[in-house]
Amino acid sequence: MTTDIRTQELKNPIDVAEYLFRRLHQVGVRSVHGVPGDYNLVALDYIPKTDLHWVGNVNELNAGYAADGYARVKGISAIVTTFGVGELSTVNAIAGAYSEYVPIVHIVGYPSTVAQKDGMLLHHTLGNGDFHVFSRIFRQISCATSLINDPHEAATLIDNAIRECWLQSRPVYISLPTDIVQKKIEGDRLNTPLDLSYPTNDPEKEDYVVDVVMKYLHAAKNPVILVDACAIRHRVLDEVHELVEKSGMPTFVAPMGKGAVNETLPNYGGVYAGSGSNAGVRERVESSDLILSIGAIKSDFNTAGFTYRISQLATIDFHSNYVRVRYSEYPGVRMLGVLRQICRRLQAASAPPLSILPGPQPTNAIPAAELADPAPTITQAWFWPRLGQWLRPADILITETGTANFGIWETRFPADVTAISQVLWGSIGYATAATQGAALAAREIGIQRTVLFTGDGSFQLTAQELSTMLRNGLTPVIFVICNGGYTIERYIHGWQERYNDVQEWRYGDLPRAFGAKEGEARVVRVETKTEVERLFSDEGFATQKCLRFVELVMRWDDAPVALKLTASAAAKRNAEA
Amino acid sequence: MTTDIRTQELKNPIDVAEYLFRRLHQVGVRSVHGVPGDYNLVALDYIPKTDLHWVGNVNELNAGYAADGYARVKGISAIVTTFGVGELSTVNAIAGAYSEYVPIVHIVGYPSTVAQKDGMLLHHTLGNGDFHVFSRIFRQISCATSLINDPHEAATLIDNAIRECWLQSRPVYISLPTDIVQKKIEGDRLNTPLDLSYPTNDPEKEDYVVDVVMKYLHAAKNPVILVDACAIRHRVLDEVHELVEKSGMPTFVAPMGKGAVNETLPNYGGVYAGSGSNAGVRERVESSDLILSIGAIKSDFNTAGFTYRISQLATIDFHSNYVRVRYSEYPGVRMLGVLRQICRRLQAASAPPLSILPGPQPTNAIPAAELADPAPTITQAWFWPRLGQWLRPADILITETGTANFGIWETRFPADVTAISQVLWGSIGYATAATQGAALAAREIGIQRTVLFTGDGSFQLTAQELSTMLRNGLTPVIFVICNGGYTIERYIHGWQERYNDVQEWRYGDLPRAFGAKEGEARVVRVETKTEVERLFSDEGFATQKCLRFVELVMRWDDAPVALKLTASAAAKRNAEA
Ligand SMILES: Cc1ncc(C[n+]2csc(CCOP(=O)(O)OP(=O)(O)O)c2C)c(N)n1
Ligand SMILES: Cc1ncc(C[n+]2csc(CCOP(=O)(O)OP(=O)(O)O)c2C)c(N)n1
Ligand SMILES: [Mg+2]
Ligand SMILES: [Mg+2]
Repeated sequence: MTTDIRTQELKNPIDVAEYLFRRLHQVGVRSVHGVPGDYNLVALDYIPKTDLHWVGNVNELNAGYAADGYARVKGISAIVTTFGVGELSTVNAIAGAYSEYVPIVHIVGYPSTVAQKDGMLLHHTLGNGDFHVFSRIFRQISCATSLINDPHEAATLIDNAIRECWLQSRPVYISLPTDIVQKKIEGDRLNTPLDLSYPTNDPEKEDYVVDVVMKYLHAAKNPVILVDACAIRHRVLDEVHELVEKSGMPTFVAPMGKGAVNETLPNYGGVYAGSGSNAGVRERVESSDLILSIGAIKSDFNTAGFTYRISQLATIDFHSNYVRVRYSEYPGVRMLGVLRQICRRLQAASAPPLSILPGPQPTNAIPAAELADPAPTITQAWFWPRLGQWLRPADILITETGTANFGIWETRFPADVTAISQVLWGSIGYATAATQGAALAAREIGIQRTVLFTGDGSFQLTAQELSTMLRNGLTPVIFVICNGGYTIERYIHGWQERYNDVQEWRYGDLPRAFGAKEGEARVVRVETKTEVERLFSDEGFATQKCLRFVELVMRWDDAPVALKLTASAAAKRNAEA
Repeated sequence: MTTDIRTQELKNPIDVAEYLFRRLHQVGVRSVHGVPGDYNLVALDYIPKTDLHWVGNVNELNAGYAADGYARVKGISAIVTTFGVGELSTVNAIAGAYSEYVPIVHIVGYPSTVAQKDGMLLHHTLGNGDFHVFSRIFRQISCATSLINDPHEAATLIDNAIRECWLQSRPVYISLPTDIVQKKIEGDRLNTPLDLSYPTNDPEKEDYVVDVVMKYLHAAKNPVILVDACAIRHRVLDEVHELVEKSGMPTFVAPMGKGAVNETLPNYGGVYAGSGSNAGVRERVESSDLILSIGAIKSDFNTAGFTYRISQLATIDFHSNYVRVRYSEYPGVRMLGVLRQICRRLQAASAPPLSILPGPQPTNAIPAAELADPAPTITQAWFWPRLGQWLRPADILITETGTANFGIWETRFPADVTAISQVLWGSIGYATAATQGAALAAREIGIQRTVLFTGDGSFQLTAQELSTMLRNGLTPVIFVICNGGYTIERYIHGWQERYNDVQEWRYGDLPRAFGAKEGEARVVRVETKTEVERLFSDEGFATQKCLRFVELVMRWDDAPVALKLTASAAAKRNAEA
């Protein structure tokens, strides 16, 4: 069915699957997530051949989440699934990556082009001969969909998909029919690496925008910087760091921007999230006469329920594809070039100094009320700053939707921490599986620790990803907050309803049940502050090369303040009519 | 935003959510599957109010599979998920139900109509203000999509969706925004039950078709009946049973039709699947001069790789919406009415007798070679007929894609067995979660036993659904075939490749880890035929009121013959170019 490229026409014949995996290797992928299926088996043979590692996830949703975690650490990731049943299990994970700007190359093993053309009644189809239904679904949540049906176009489609994935920082979809896998194409094309550079701004336009920004910046009495998720996802962290360090402006992060800036800097001021902000932050940010807002995503949970009180007249917004100064929009002007120029101008010998007023200085000090409380119970208010004292530079820290994702606002990070969470998409189960991918990526680049905080309810959705971690010799530190159910939901509705309870598992038994051998996992249960203290001062626990699994017991009715505020705003909005 | 119906205009005001759940109750739903989320919490309050039971699944994919299992036993089922993250996790399960004709009412808790209209940047959105992306996805795999945006149309949309679900025997999608849940509508409408009767055939047309069928039937020398999945899914089993019993024709089932007919009848002849048929069946069916083929789905796995050798000239096809006699098609003529008439005509005093030659008599005798084998190992060839001796009337028997789904072809069932599997869609992980739904449905209608056979690889995808079973006090018998990985895949490609291995779990530890209390679960491991014999003769085990969990150890390289044939056909087709 598919026309073959005559091998003698090729200088360096290479199989389509090998081309694909070599391209992925070139952009930094070293491990491929996924689950086998008969439509992708032959393709999987090329993974070891191209020096890639096959993860072998337990199911495809977990694989998708894991690929998301891997991409957030390494810049891009890949997942292989099988037609229909496999790919469709990833839809939630891929939609989450689309929503949160995470670049995942999703390769789907398809039935042969012959079978497709003949509309055969194959397993994993809807039984109606339509082989395009699933790609139509993924078109809704992918920034490119490459359906390979002919070896002649394979290289172009593959290159395109990977480039779009990187540049738009969103998932792409590649179909790979069984009869295409081993077709020969020109391998010499691989000698030219993919061009992954962002388009540069029109210089005149960029200069114009930078002039405007500098004018406002120099006129400002107390400017501040506010960094959010898109600064991470659209890869301007080097520029942001330079700006923060060189300018000395008080710098804040939105919850989704946690980890974007070095929180040990003297001008780091804490988390801004409207009424859910760290102590002193709201006053400082909202009284500023100029906010350089970099990569904002002003979603409900990222703003403690839309509680920002910032005037657009005092705001300059930097985005991946536009800049807005007060109400003047500059479409097509990418923040990358603009931020670079701002840094350069600020450093110019002739540059007048900025007027800078200091901001708050967040610490990991335990609140006085908590210190005074004689009860042994581990409270949310006590725990999160305490965690900040235990974390180490370069840790990867993953938090799940639930109390953890709000508690972490109260933790000041050491330098170089990578924080991973889904504040916008908010799919529970994500964090546990993402930990597998993140821990694997961490190992590949020499980062020591990957630390997860998940709720008990969330953990149950994807618990078996522990098995994949063990199978791959990964050694994350996993904290399961055991509080008897869906506490975050209780704060929204159904305080003591049965639907907010979960089955009480013996969580600590799971690593062994999932096959941990002697020495591969260490299980701990902490129920009191004293036990936490003991655990956190155990150097062995902190650095041990095995999977560490902690049952962290908290009260069912305890939650971080920011969560309480956000939950009551959500409940109100749901009832609004 | 949504206009309210003035309550004084209503004779019997009732909240939209209550209306919805009462309608579900009326069509036979007693338990609702799903996972809470803030967009559906208020709706969940109506479940106990309407005498429904909330299952509380561990995740949404499992919930979808469980709803599928429940619907296959009770005729229809319901699942509630939350916007975006929840619903999208079910896509694979809903697509499977679409493919295999299983009626599931999928209710999705949506953000309020106000928030939708304003395009708010809410959690669980793609961040682009588009609240229709997810329903567009489900439109591909649902036979009706009811988006409720106004209480005035709520009742009509709900009624429509439930009716289509029942009549087309496929999933439907209902959006329920948070601000619609408690809006008042007319409750008196509930006094008129939904009309779920199938449209009848045009009598003249039907008579014509029946005449033609009878002519061929009376002319036939050795007619047979072949029953397949659509006979079950489109609800003509009573008619089929009458036809089989009254006519005495040798009757066969396709693999997807297993359980459709009473296999203890003297004229039951076994499984027909081309070259994968039971002993003697292929010869008998393919030499017949007339095959009444009822509800066929001639998919690859249902035909052992398209190995039917049946002439269309000897075939009459009965389908839910057409009949085909040799090459003459009768569109719009439903098999239901036609089969009823055929039964009536066969019984008429004046009816000439049919010419009937006997067929093979399948038994659950162990093949001689297996009996002669002194090795203690449990083989596939030995096990499946042995299982047939242990099964009891009315058992619900669920088999997973893998060796189990092919092995079961060799098991002759007692009367009234309901067999559940996904021969067409074939998503692994399905069977374990479907067992939860099936066991719950079984309890509701007084069926004693639900028995699952899953592979170890498949079990890993959805293992935590054990937790939901325990939480709901369900007591299925679960067999996990422990053979060190994806045996079915090995037979297709990658005989000893690492990607076909799975992590070795301590499966038997799981019920306890998932919270089984003393007496709630019994765990057994069987490694030899003798151990199986002992287990199967233990009356306590057979009838015990607790979850029974069996590790059934088999060789990694052993598979049922029918699987070997089908797998090699699949491998050949994948390579075809
Ligand atoms: C896939 C998915 N299903 C459902 C939800 C709705 N939801 C959000 S948070 C939550 C409960 C989380 O509970 P847990 O992990 O125990 O957190 P905590 O108790 O710490 O709040 C639920 C059910 C969701 N966000 N994602
Ligand atoms: C969701 C999904 N992912 C992947 C596949 C591909 N697949 C089909 S069967 C199978 C292996 C099943 O292995 P197991 O359950 O152990 O069965 P057995 O060893 O008895 O054959 C796989 C991976 C699938 N059918 N569905
Ligand atoms: Mg919890
Ligand atoms: Mg197996």
